[in-house]
Amino acid sequence: MDSSALNDDAPADSARRRRTRDRLVDAAYEVFAEYGVHAASVEMICEHAGFTRGAFYSNFQAKEELFFALMERENTIRIGRLQQGIASFLDPIAGDHPSFGEEVVETIIRQFLELQADDRRWCLVQSEFALLAMRDPSVAGSYRTFQAEFLDQLTAIIVQAIDTVGLRFSIDARSATRLIVGSYEDAMVDSILDPGGPGASERALGELTAVILALTSPSEQGPKALGKTEPVAGVLSS
Amino acid sequence: MDSSALNDDAPADSARRRRTRDRLVDAAYEVFAEYGVHAASVEMICEHAGFTRGAFYSNFQAKEELFFALMERENTIRIGRLQQGIASFLDPIAGDHPSFGEEVVETIIRQFLELQADDRRWCLVQSEFALLAMRDPSVAGSYRTFQAEFLDQLTAIIVQAIDTVGLRFSIDARSATRLIVGSYEDAMVDSILDPGGPGASERALGELTAVILALTSPSEQGPKALGKTEPVAGVLSS
Repeated sequence: MDSSALNDDAPADSARRRRTRDRLVDAAYEVFAEYGVHAASVEMICEHAGFTRGAFYSNFQAKEELFFALMERENTIRIGRLQQGIASFLDPIAGDHPSFGEEVVETIIRQFLELQADDRRWCLVQSEFALLAMRDPSVAGSYRTFQAEFLDQLTAIIVQAIDTVGLRFSIDARSATRLIVGSYEDAMVDSILDPGGPGASERALGELTAVILALTSPSEQGPKALGKTEPVAGVLSS
Repeated sequence: MDSSALNDDAPADSARRRRTRDRLVDAAYEVFAEYGVHAASVEMICEHAGFTRGAFYSNFQAKEELFFALMERENTIRIGRLQQGIASFLDPIAGDHPSFGEEVVETIIRQFLELQADDRRWCLVQSEFALLAMRDPSVAGSYRTFQAEFLDQLTAIIVQAIDTVGLRFSIDARSATRLIVGSYEDAMVDSILDPGGPGASERALGELTAVILALTSPSEQGPKALGKTEPVAGVLSS
């Protein structure tokens, strides 16, 4: 193992170190997508990134660590897009309408879907990760924790979005979020299997709208603007 | 290619041919589960089954054909279990109750889940198939058609079950079925990632019950017994 050999490639400062890590993560993404996670080797990833194995091992202990670094980066991008959607589409309209009908919900979902890139490559690599984790007990635990944390983040954002338009989930919010993600992923897989047909967002829109409407009901307080705090404590008589 | 050489192993009658095919499908299942669909070769499968390549090619044109034969067999087993559940749990109680509360729905779902084996190995192999289909355009089309047909069969059975207890889906039945399957598969994946924890059925029960109740509403005619025909035409005025 080279992991103990901090050689000349070891980054001198954190910015350079971050760039090296980013290039390795980029290369890993490409190699994983092209050859599969199982077939991808540290050597292939290093060659693709133009780094030595020494540079790799001064940043990551093993291929699996790179796999979590890539998941973290890609999940952060997706969370960021959802937050951008809330700021762009929901904040401006929140509070304007006493209630939101089916059409408004569909329009908002369409806007959110348009923010998503048509992530076919990510869907593929994610399926590879899931399979690797199911097959490798040494990765399974960390993968499960990682996915649970991502689902928590997604749930918080989706609950916020739903709340902003005056709806609340009628089932456990985490379960609802998982169903919403599942519906989107089904559309993504379908778009990969049928590349001549519509993109994932177009396939997902109708079902996502129906599912979100079926799993929600109007909340008591109606739509509210983002960032508005709860009523001041003194206003509440008990 | 050996495919034209119908050698001595070619089955003389259809029963023998069926046994040969079954043994090859069994072997394929084991090899796919152990090594992955991509790594599995026709040679490995033949060796595992104790057959020559000639016997293989007199039954299947390629590994991919075996993969669809295995999917067909396993899906048929699962459809059969669901039908058995309808006959065992739903037929006897249908018509007895004016309406079915949450507890009854949960009990029925628990009974259906107990009929399912804890199919971790099948979940793994299915994930491999999905990935292979996403990566191989020559398989994608057939895989997609195959999955669509299975979803149609599942939808028909689940609609029948739901109808028997006096419920109907409030969203498209096919979408609802896909969500139900997705919820069960999530529980299955979770049970694989966390093998020391509860089995898939135990993990699935709460969410499945909540999802089915959220996606259904009481149907107008209430619960009905299986096989009962619609009211006699003469009874209906207009």
